[in-house]
Amino acid sequence: MKSEDILRGLRDRDPRGIARAISLVEENDPLADEILSSLDDALVAEAMILGITGPPGAGKSTLTDRVIAKYRLKGKRVGVIAVDPSSPISGGALLGDRVRMMGHALDKDVVVRSMATRGRLGGLCAAAGAAMRILASSGCSVIIIETVGVGQSEMDIIRIADITALVLAPGLGDDIQAMKAGLLEVADILIVNKADCPGAEALAMDMESIAREGGSKEKDRAKVCMTVASEGKGIDELLAAIETVDASHRESGERRTRREKAYDLEVLEWALEMIKPSIIEKINTWNHDRKGAPRLQAAKLLGRECVRISE
Amino acid sequence: MKSEDILRGLRDRDPRGIARAISLVEENDPLADEILSSLDDALVAEAMILGITGPPGAGKSTLTDRVIAKYRLKGKRVGVIAVDPSSPISGGALLGDRVRMMGHALDKDVVVRSMATRGRLGGLCAAAGAAMRILASSGCSVIIIETVGVGQSEMDIIRIADITALVLAPGLGDDIQAMKAGLLEVADILIVNKADCPGAEALAMDMESIAREGGSKEKDRAKVCMTVASEGKGIDELLAAIETVDASHRESGERRTRREKAYDLEVLEWALEMIKPSIIEKINTWNHDRKGAPRLQAAKLLGRECVRISE
Repeated sequence: MKSEDILRGLRDRDPRGIARAISLVEENDPLADEILSSLDDALVAEAMILGITGPPGAGKSTLTDRVIAKYRLKGKRVGVIAVDPSSPISGGALLGDRVRMMGHALDKDVVVRSMATRGRLGGLCAAAGAAMRILASSGCSVIIIETVGVGQSEMDIIRIADITALVLAPGLGDDIQAMKAGLLEVADILIVNKADCPGAEALAMDMESIAREGGSKEKDRAKVCMTVASEGKGIDELLAAIETVDASHRESGERRTRREKAYDLEVLEWALEMIKPSIIEKINTWNHDRKGAPRLQAAKLLGRECVRISE
Repeated sequence: MKSEDILRGLRDRDPRGIARAISLVEENDPLADEILSSLDDALVAEAMILGITGPPGAGKSTLTDRVIAKYRLKGKRVGVIAVDPSSPISGGALLGDRVRMMGHALDKDVVVRSMATRGRLGGLCAAAGAAMRILASSGCSVIIIETVGVGQSEMDIIRIADITALVLAPGLGDDIQAMKAGLLEVADILIVNKADCPGAEALAMDMESIAREGGSKEKDRAKVCMTVASEGKGIDELLAAIETVDASHRESGERRTRREKAYDLEVLEWALEMIKPSIIEKINTWNHDRKGAPRLQAAKLLGRECVRISE
């Protein structure tokens, strides 16, 4: 397929064209750059990128499903990028696109794409950023990036979103409680899902108190929403909160700033990826004894006197 | 404190010296390289680095506690590096060292150190590798790296271990099942913890079948162990499995290969880290329009004709 055919496919919202374009990105095909250079920048700029993240067991998938349904009722075309921690060997996404979001399987205006977190060139932000642009160019005005918010790369990917919602639920244990902390600081919306379960009120109070620490002005604070995704409760309020944050970010310039940072992050990821092979080549052909401080070895490798040896 | 004092502290197994040395590494202090260059390479080479990973709720901490206790009974000094997904803002570890491994709090021959996954220079492998060397040089002959095995960087860190054990438990849900897959492929030992819970047998059978796919020869296959860490059951068998894998890796040369790869990975991480600031500087001072394919922008930034634009 030529790039013009794929670009036409995107404009025509042809599922095969969209799938092909994202696959080219994932496969690191040179054609991908040609496609990404010819997308509709206005559509990309206008789409809302919503990051939904949270620990396993918080109910992210169910919640995402409900959010999709609401946006569909509003007539929006919705793109979903589901980020899976995945095999270091196969490099493939673990959850097939078909497994997730089954409720929207027959809806042509819900485009779901799984992305593996491993085995890719250019970093995860770069790949998700590319997928986001492709989905936006195929007419998706809402794009949801769903990630399991526990690892570093999963947290990084949130940086490409315009708005980040963190989903928590009561009773997820200590490990989970620890994980959420990093995300709390970057979330615009804190969702207490399973709000009908014991401990939800206490969790919501915790979240409210964390939100208050986030800013003295009401509008700078993270919003706390309570939902029971399995019953569809609280989803209208959540969408209202998203709208409020979005309006505020547009007004303050925060939206533009985030987009610029996200773009530069992608460029940085790519630049490092381009430089990496030559460093690996150097290491592989280098006769080093693999002892002592690796940083000093790295400096030697690069031919730099990069560290001051202090007294 | 001068580097000689710290090095003497390590030799004397002085907890303050150990803590200071690792902090210098974490703070990216030039003194850290001096210390890392003067460590006891023989002790580092001889120590066993055991990676224990698994999803939240599998019972990693309890199991790690039990494993520590067993090695203590064998007279081994044990170091623990607990890797926490952490705040992008504070960059600090979330779980204080004191919170974890409380059972060994008064034992001077159990040295526990938490490491944040974020906000560090040089990558997580580099930081954990440095901490591992410091712990080994202070006489720890067993070093456990405990991570929440869900994200990419958490999976990467396992690459610095000699032996990797993946802890799973029945009933952890779909998210968890998906996460484990990438880890299954790199694990030497598959632990089914909470073996007294419903579903444990089925999970163990799954693991056995996955292990069989891993190799036609018995000794190449991952070992499957069943434990009830909360009651201390199955820990002797687990240690026997670790010993078997270790012996096999030493005999086959696998241990040496892994160490070399791990060292080179650290050098790579440092080299990229050293190059990164100049790229960020370039991006920040660069008048780009932030449109189109980020990879092409990166190539332009580096002054490269790195991609072929195909027809």
